[in-house]
Amino acid sequence: MEKVQLDKNFFIPMPVTLIGSMYKGKPNFMAAGWVSRVNANPPQIGIGIHQSHATIEGIEENKTFSICFPNKELLVKADYVGIASAKKTDKSHVFDVFYGNIKTAPMIQEAPLCIECNLVHTYKGPTNTFFIGEIQGVHAEKSLLQDGKISPKAMDYLFLTMPDNNYWSLGESVGKAWSIGKQYKA
Amino acid sequence: MEKVQLDKNFFIPMPVTLIGSMYKGKPNFMAAGWVSRVNANPPQIGIGIHQSHATIEGIEENKTFSICFPNKELLVKADYVGIASAKKTDKSHVFDVFYGNIKTAPMIQEAPLCIECNLVHTYKGPTNTFFIGEIQGVHAEKSLLQDGKISPKAMDYLFLTMPDNNYWSLGESVGKAWSIGKQYKA
Repeated sequence: MEKVQLDKNFFIPMPVTLIGSMYKGKPNFMAAGWVSRVNANPPQIGIGIHQSHATIEGIEENKTFSICFPNKELLVKADYVGIASAKKTDKSHVFDVFYGNIKTAPMIQEAPLCIECNLVHTYKGPTNTFFIGEIQGVHAEKSLLQDGKISPKAMDYLFLTMPDNNYWSLGESVGKAWSIGKQYKA
Repeated sequence: MEKVQLDKNFFIPMPVTLIGSMYKGKPNFMAAGWVSRVNANPPQIGIGIHQSHATIEGIEENKTFSICFPNKELLVKADYVGIASAKKTDKSHVFDVFYGNIKTAPMIQEAPLCIECNLVHTYKGPTNTFFIGEIQGVHAEKSLLQDGKISPKAMDYLFLTMPDNNYWSLGESVGKAWSIGKQYKA
């Protein structure tokens, strides 16, 4: 395949998530897609956030955060909290809030799936901070479960691609991991 | 929504990628889904890899790595290099290899999209290492481009969900980011 070189500011496809923190004593949420598991045991997860965001202050102060997963029904609100800044707009009433084990990691009642984390490591990059948290609780709507596991289709995960700036639904199952590769012949 | 608590070892939906490194002087690739952009400017990206993998040694030695994106056509090979370990099996002939600006970041000719990175930071977790690299080159098949941007549908991005262990295609576009949220009324 003939290849062309593109701009180095390349974006991978991302899960759409909502990061919860306390900002000036109020629950605050922002949309974020720079998210990845980081460590297997104990379970750690990282989020990358531009240093201009209010969420940075909230997480640094309380050393806790949450990650909720919106479905299509929540998409307008999810995008809204990615546009409006808590520095100018009080976003504490956009969602119904609940708390799990951590009292400074607000989560979203309407979101079908939320996790709460304690901050364990911070990487301060030149423009963004990557917060690594240890997962302390996972809260899922019961209807998402199939044989005790989350059904990705029932969850209705959303994805974001950039710079075309589109949200996407999950497509079709195309193979089993750690399995389909056994068909490979050198 | 009534919620139930699940196991803390929670997996977010992940893009399917192939991590390239040099292992004992040969190109080596492994499947990985713990990937996220980390910093905006300069563009940095992180990958989380279990410390049992040969890729750890390759990246620590050369301080470089690549990330390629397979499409459905490459799925069997992509899953295979996630099953077979370079510590036991020579995987250097699974793909046709090319190099860009970095001579120790092997990339995959058959993959429609590849990026090459210099290591800039390492977070050594208890079981996994999260390598953060600065993007040095982005190489895409010309047919992926639409108005100079990668078309996610043409790219045919793949996703992995766990613990159900399914690969998924990208679904339908469901909204425009930084736009649909303007419909929100408090």
